[in-house]
Amino acid sequence: MLEELKKQVYEANMLLPRYGLVTFTWGNVSAIDREKGLFCIKPSGVDYEKLTPEDMVVMDLDGNKVEGKYKPSSDTPTHLELYKAFDDIGGIVHTHSSYATSWAQAGRSIPCYGTTHADYIYGEVPCVRCLNKEEIDSAYETNTGLLIIDEFRKSGRDVMAVPCVLCKNHGPFAWGKNAGDAVHNAVVLEEVAKMAYRAETINPQIQPAPQELQDKHYYRKHGANAYYGQ
Amino acid sequence: MLEELKKQVYEANMLLPRYGLVTFTWGNVSAIDREKGLFCIKPSGVDYEKLTPEDMVVMDLDGNKVEGKYKPSSDTPTHLELYKAFDDIGGIVHTHSSYATSWAQAGRSIPCYGTTHADYIYGEVPCVRCLNKEEIDSAYETNTGLLIIDEFRKSGRDVMAVPCVLCKNHGPFAWGKNAGDAVHNAVVLEEVAKMAYRAETINPQIQPAPQELQDKHYYRKHGANAYYGQ
Amino acid sequence: MLEELKKQVYEANMLLPRYGLVTFTWGNVSAIDREKGLFCIKPSGVDYEKLTPEDMVVMDLDGNKVEGKYKPSSDTPTHLELYKAFDDIGGIVHTHSSYATSWAQAGRSIPCYGTTHADYIYGEVPCVRCLNKEEIDSAYETNTGLLIIDEFRKSGRDVMAVPCVLCKNHGPFAWGKNAGDAVHNAVVLEEVAKMAYRAETINPQIQPAPQELQDKHYYRKHGANAYYGQ
Amino acid sequence: MLEELKKQVYEANMLLPRYGLVTFTWGNVSAIDREKGLFCIKPSGVDYEKLTPEDMVVMDLDGNKVEGKYKPSSDTPTHLELYKAFDDIGGIVHTHSSYATSWAQAGRSIPCYGTTHADYIYGEVPCVRCLNKEEIDSAYETNTGLLIIDEFRKSGRDVMAVPCVLCKNHGPFAWGKNAGDAVHNAVVLEEVAKMAYRAETINPQIQPAPQELQDKHYYRKHGANAYYGQ
Repeated sequence: MLEELKKQVYEANMLLPRYGLVTFTWGNVSAIDREKGLFCIKPSGVDYEKLTPEDMVVMDLDGNKVEGKYKPSSDTPTHLELYKAFDDIGGIVHTHSSYATSWAQAGRSIPCYGTTHADYIYGEVPCVRCLNKEEIDSAYETNTGLLIIDEFRKSGRDVMAVPCVLCKNHGPFAWGKNAGDAVHNAVVLEEVAKMAYRAETINPQIQPAPQELQDKHYYRKHGANAYYGQ
Repeated sequence: MLEELKKQVYEANMLLPRYGLVTFTWGNVSAIDREKGLFCIKPSGVDYEKLTPEDMVVMDLDGNKVEGKYKPSSDTPTHLELYKAFDDIGGIVHTHSSYATSWAQAGRSIPCYGTTHADYIYGEVPCVRCLNKEEIDSAYETNTGLLIIDEFRKSGRDVMAVPCVLCKNHGPFAWGKNAGDAVHNAVVLEEVAKMAYRAETINPQIQPAPQELQDKHYYRKHGANAYYGQ
Repeated sequence: MLEELKKQVYEANMLLPRYGLVTFTWGNVSAIDREKGLFCIKPSGVDYEKLTPEDMVVMDLDGNKVEGKYKPSSDTPTHLELYKAFDDIGGIVHTHSSYATSWAQAGRSIPCYGTTHADYIYGEVPCVRCLNKEEIDSAYETNTGLLIIDEFRKSGRDVMAVPCVLCKNHGPFAWGKNAGDAVHNAVVLEEVAKMAYRAETINPQIQPAPQELQDKHYYRKHGANAYYGQ
Repeated sequence: MLEELKKQVYEANMLLPRYGLVTFTWGNVSAIDREKGLFCIKPSGVDYEKLTPEDMVVMDLDGNKVEGKYKPSSDTPTHLELYKAFDDIGGIVHTHSSYATSWAQAGRSIPCYGTTHADYIYGEVPCVRCLNKEEIDSAYETNTGLLIIDEFRKSGRDVMAVPCVLCKNHGPFAWGKNAGDAVHNAVVLEEVAKMAYRAETINPQIQPAPQELQDKHYYRKHGANAYYGQ
């Protein structure tokens, strides 16, 4: 079942090592079929070199495994909550990519310092707090998802305009219209995290880019008046 | 038409991923045929892997598309202004290369700290200010070009002696005698930006290289008394 | 003799250049056959490109060479002491990997700033002091091993929960159940050292991850209640 | 003539891009035949991709070209002075490798922070001052050589124990018994420069490694009591 979706999720997972976003098995991509209410996700702890499209695990939105010989990624409950909360999200990726994870460890949101960032992400990349002991001990991965949802709802951020987040002391999640789009955003996030790191070193008094420039670049690529691309 | 120029521009564009200067489609190269008053430029948002020489878009100096199935790069008006203002420029490149863009985000000109820089760029790499709201909202890409031109005219800089510039909160432009030369200078700029970043970390009290050393190295490779190369 | 173990040690050694952990011959891996009381180790100063499984040197736990045409790695006495002190260690690796060595040169233990670290290493990566003149001049490599053992015993650290250490002004040692596992941990250490370096730059007031998060991630992958992987 | 030496010099030059020490043509290697009093050096500004062993230029120790269709590297007079001053030097390399050049731009000698450094270089890597205007304008490359020689003579440093130097605002020179050995030392220098950069960031109060540790590691690999390698 869901052969085409499994193939897309498999291929998106295989992009992670190609783009240098993962070491060993430290990452996972999923994608959802909204009509069927099922999503496919990478199995837990399986080497990328040995992965095949058939290894993708099919889950329903109640967290039940519908198909698959392997256990799904341990981060599956986080993906699940995000799919349930945000209808526009078609694919999700989690990595420990080096620069984004360093910002997460530092517990800081990434300010928008320039157009590379503004072309894809509207405003800062938010860093959500670390879960507390009770949240960790009860349902860690589910609570990670709920915390992200809470952050976006409270701040009024649109998940499609801010397609990524940092979890303090942990690492990034990114998402998009589908699995490939989610990985694309994860690559952007890593580049943006790298440039922001270096820009702050070059100028400790650095300020975010002016709002009008952020608007210009974001809306050059998004919305009704976009004119980038074909 | 302009088959040879299209090929040169195509090949110069393909050097960008090879030299690690671009992620995804974040860059574009153009080159001009001065006799015909036409220039070729990469189409907007097309993957490098799928690019062919025939995809290059031909533009005239009034900003009209003369040939090409695709829309030209969104940065085309910036290229256009630079070609109109400076007769010596034969090729132009824009990238979001990591270190140069970090300096641009930091809003700082790159001081000349050594001979790697002085061999190619006479004096600092200037960083022009961010455009204001009115300039952004009216004709963003055209105004970017006009700001660069204004900077070089006011400072009396020679565009062939300083073949690159940083645009605050955005990224670098580089140029040269032709498309390949422009890319060569973009690679140099990225190396120079990287070394300057590191040199300032190693010695926060660092000073620019003495003027006589800058002169020596620049004129070892440029002008009537050059003696580098064959 | 020990053909299978030699092959494993050879293959683990060849992973070092593949993972970018060594320059030239700056690294060595060994593994032990506990039943026979013998271990295999890389010969000293032999290029990775020329290495074969047969080149591995067989040593006993009294430090005698049992088989091999080459001299064993100069760090052999350090490996030997660790094998004698800790029964659970099946493989050991020493490298000069860049970030881990930089922390060792800086003389600092690596704090646990996030889950990438906590997934593999319980608490900080300790940095042991530099040996004193007498220790250096008498039996340098043996004393390096004894110092590591002393550190783990005094602090009550479990070598399988903290599978690596930094030696001040020198570099890292890592270990595991076997040769491949030791190299795996050496890769993790380098990633962790890199992220901690960057995280401190991003936030100089950074604090270690909360203990409950460290516990959660470590025990998600280790012990009776582990649920990561298949 | 000198076909074997040309081949060695060619191969050593080709190692520079392979080890990531050069961008474009920014480097050159030479080696000397002491009996004949002739040395071979890379031609000036020729692409590594197009280089052949026959392109190597043969020079005598008076600075005359003895054979070769190309002009020799513009840094030839520096090589020449070093060969004349130090009989033990058999090969010389100059690069603009990124970290070593950053230290040179910062105008700082590289302290010995650990055993990676001590294994190859006895004590700090000295950084010589920038030439003054008169020295630059008269015979720049010759004076660069004379300044290096003066530094080693005044400080009593042995060129074979300290096989590299930084020239302020310029970059590194390294040398060795032959061309390959010189390149080996240039790779070591770049690694050492990288680790020292990072170690200072990790611990701004860092101190050089104790002298007894420096001695131990240097003499483990050099001199009558060396025991590293086969």
